[in-house]
Amino acid sequence: MLGKFLESVKERKPLVHSITNYVTVNDVANVILASGAKPIMSSEPTDIEEVTSISNALNINMGTLTTDRAEAMIKAGKRAKELGIPVVLDPVGVGISAFRSETAQKILDEVGPTVVRGNITEIKALSLGSKNRSGVDAASGDEVGVDNIREICEFVDEFAKNRDCIVVVTGETDIVSNGKTRYLISNGCAKMSEYTGSGCQLSGLIGAFLGAAGTDDSISAVAAAVCTLGLAGEIALTYMQKGDGNATYRNRVIDAVYNMTGNILNEGARYEVQ
Amino acid sequence: MLGKFLESVKERKPLVHSITNYVTVNDVANVILASGAKPIMSSEPTDIEEVTSISNALNINMGTLTTDRAEAMIKAGKRAKELGIPVVLDPVGVGISAFRSETAQKILDEVGPTVVRGNITEIKALSLGSKNRSGVDAASGDEVGVDNIREICEFVDEFAKNRDCIVVVTGETDIVSNGKTRYLISNGCAKMSEYTGSGCQLSGLIGAFLGAAGTDDSISAVAAAVCTLGLAGEIALTYMQKGDGNATYRNRVIDAVYNMTGNILNEGARYEVQ
Amino acid sequence: MLGKFLESVKERKPLVHSITNYVTVNDVANVILASGAKPIMSSEPTDIEEVTSISNALNINMGTLTTDRAEAMIKAGKRAKELGIPVVLDPVGVGISAFRSETAQKILDEVGPTVVRGNITEIKALSLGSKNRSGVDAASGDEVGVDNIREICEFVDEFAKNRDCIVVVTGETDIVSNGKTRYLISNGCAKMSEYTGSGCQLSGLIGAFLGAAGTDDSISAVAAAVCTLGLAGEIALTYMQKGDGNATYRNRVIDAVYNMTGNILNEGARYEVQ
Repeated sequence: MLGKFLESVKERKPLVHSITNYVTVNDVANVILASGAKPIMSSEPTDIEEVTSISNALNINMGTLTTDRAEAMIKAGKRAKELGIPVVLDPVGVGISAFRSETAQKILDEVGPTVVRGNITEIKALSLGSKNRSGVDAASGDEVGVDNIREICEFVDEFAKNRDCIVVVTGETDIVSNGKTRYLISNGCAKMSEYTGSGCQLSGLIGAFLGAAGTDDSISAVAAAVCTLGLAGEIALTYMQKGDGNATYRNRVIDAVYNMTGNILNEGARYEVQ
Repeated sequence: MLGKFLESVKERKPLVHSITNYVTVNDVANVILASGAKPIMSSEPTDIEEVTSISNALNINMGTLTTDRAEAMIKAGKRAKELGIPVVLDPVGVGISAFRSETAQKILDEVGPTVVRGNITEIKALSLGSKNRSGVDAASGDEVGVDNIREICEFVDEFAKNRDCIVVVTGETDIVSNGKTRYLISNGCAKMSEYTGSGCQLSGLIGAFLGAAGTDDSISAVAAAVCTLGLAGEIALTYMQKGDGNATYRNRVIDAVYNMTGNILNEGARYEVQ
Repeated sequence: MLGKFLESVKERKPLVHSITNYVTVNDVANVILASGAKPIMSSEPTDIEEVTSISNALNINMGTLTTDRAEAMIKAGKRAKELGIPVVLDPVGVGISAFRSETAQKILDEVGPTVVRGNITEIKALSLGSKNRSGVDAASGDEVGVDNIREICEFVDEFAKNRDCIVVVTGETDIVSNGKTRYLISNGCAKMSEYTGSGCQLSGLIGAFLGAAGTDDSISAVAAAVCTLGLAGEIALTYMQKGDGNATYRNRVIDAVYNMTGNILNEGARYEVQ
């Protein structure tokens, strides 16, 4: 039952430090607050280690990456690992440019994140060094579906094992794996890709859930975060009215996280553990 | 009939690369998604050419300009032109500072944008090198009205001819001109200036429409984008309820773009071709 | 009666230059517009003095501080003081890092802001050089309550006198003091800390109110801004419906500022002058 992980966020109110892009940063802060955790943002190399030091989780998001921010990510990531603070890496758009790919690889090698979360095209680019020409969404043809789910699961398990981390691949079915245990999650809906930043929001939430859970059953804490946002997406749909579109839907998703309880999550979470 | 240009956006889902300010970037991403196109943001000189290369349009917005971003704009703009990708320039606040004016001039000279969109004070500052002391809105006295519309149209045509581009001046009446053909558009409403970023949103949408239309009847594609946002502003007004203000209105405008169809646009677009 | 200060904002439409963080910048721009004032954002050292020169108030917010932005703050702040333009300092997260503390101190010493606004933990860190390990919210134990209000008021008065400025400490009771006169304000509600940026919004509004009031009864203008946002938070609560959460509430607060009039403020403001 994953509801206890959400309750733990609300009780412990972990501080989540995000080094993130300026497109969706406001939504990331608000969804972290909606979950009961506290957000702090800083991406200045001079400032970053002290901010990480007072935080309970570090969320590194590569959207709108700059050279300064890349430097800050490495510094903050190393500091977090020294202090035993969990690190989430969201390699937005990895594979699009040499700069993004090299930075992501450097974070994998030098920091060793606790969790890596992306769409399947990003996770492939990260693992195989493949090119990404589809922007910040999964390439058509890459999507996780009935036909290729087994193959993708094996690939994800392998990557998780090699990097000793939890890998989260989001799509129609979400896969969460640490190489030994695997959650397949079917919460969520297609409308969540019609506003910007549902992936960024999820990475922030994963930080909140890990920050509250510590090292205790990390993979279930991560799965709980994935179910929380997916279920919020489903609940938000039920509130949509005539004339509403993607902007209102974005707000409704954050609202649904805000109104989520352990019980609602326990009743609505749809997943399989393998 | 302009509806077909919106349908083409929904069908082709062009990727629009925006180098834009951090004030309104989230709304720009969401309005691009609302239209059916896909947004990507990057403003790092090291990253930018590869991002532009996979995009179908480039949207350069000078709000919160920095020296790094100015460099990125030139690099991305030149790359876009080499690849035949349409470039939109939104010279936010040009004329306020030497830095903004010089950067805008450099983009005009070295990139040669496909479209330049601004309020009348910005377009005058760009064309005549005049000072702008009114911030990011048109100076009072500059606004386009019944009395000066003919004079302003001639000025806009001249600027479009000189620079071999499409010029869009937004105001009570919107003017779209390539120096030969001219659209006068009366969609939109005053409330759109009561939230931040309707101009930025329009420049993003113009990118989406050009990205889908390619070089085929560019001026009509641009006019379709202008009508789409203006009409969305009108539709959004009809959904306003007691207690709603500019924040809710902003969301409603994006929502109305999301719910717009080719037919709605064909029925609601109000323009004259001269 | 504080309503006249809001009416003055609506009449004079002051231009408020904000050098602010990228987390809440969009909300700051929209709440400034909601009040009737005009926002402009720039944080580029090359650009900043010319932007400040055309503005009626300068709002310096230290969230997501960078070295470039710190330089811009000092330059813009000095220019504002030369021109007699009021300066608001929001020392977000001061005390968390040496960089933030040194920058805040430098702004205090070299610029001399008209208003300093923060939570009690930030104001203590600024005045006493104490450490801040609580992130961007007040530390538990620091909050202003019935037991410690007298002591905190004296501390705030002292700081205001020493720095010859108006100090605003926000919390359950808001304190506004210039060392001689003191407003205790009880508008607002706890829900305002459940979305990101109500503090940033307030600093922007203070800029708007000071920009309209000039040097005429500055402390009452500041108190009017504090009452306006707090009252908007209360009004927004009355519009909350089933399923609404912190994202919708954020919009409703800005909407309530938008719909506020001098009369509504006069009737709803709850404060005591000491």
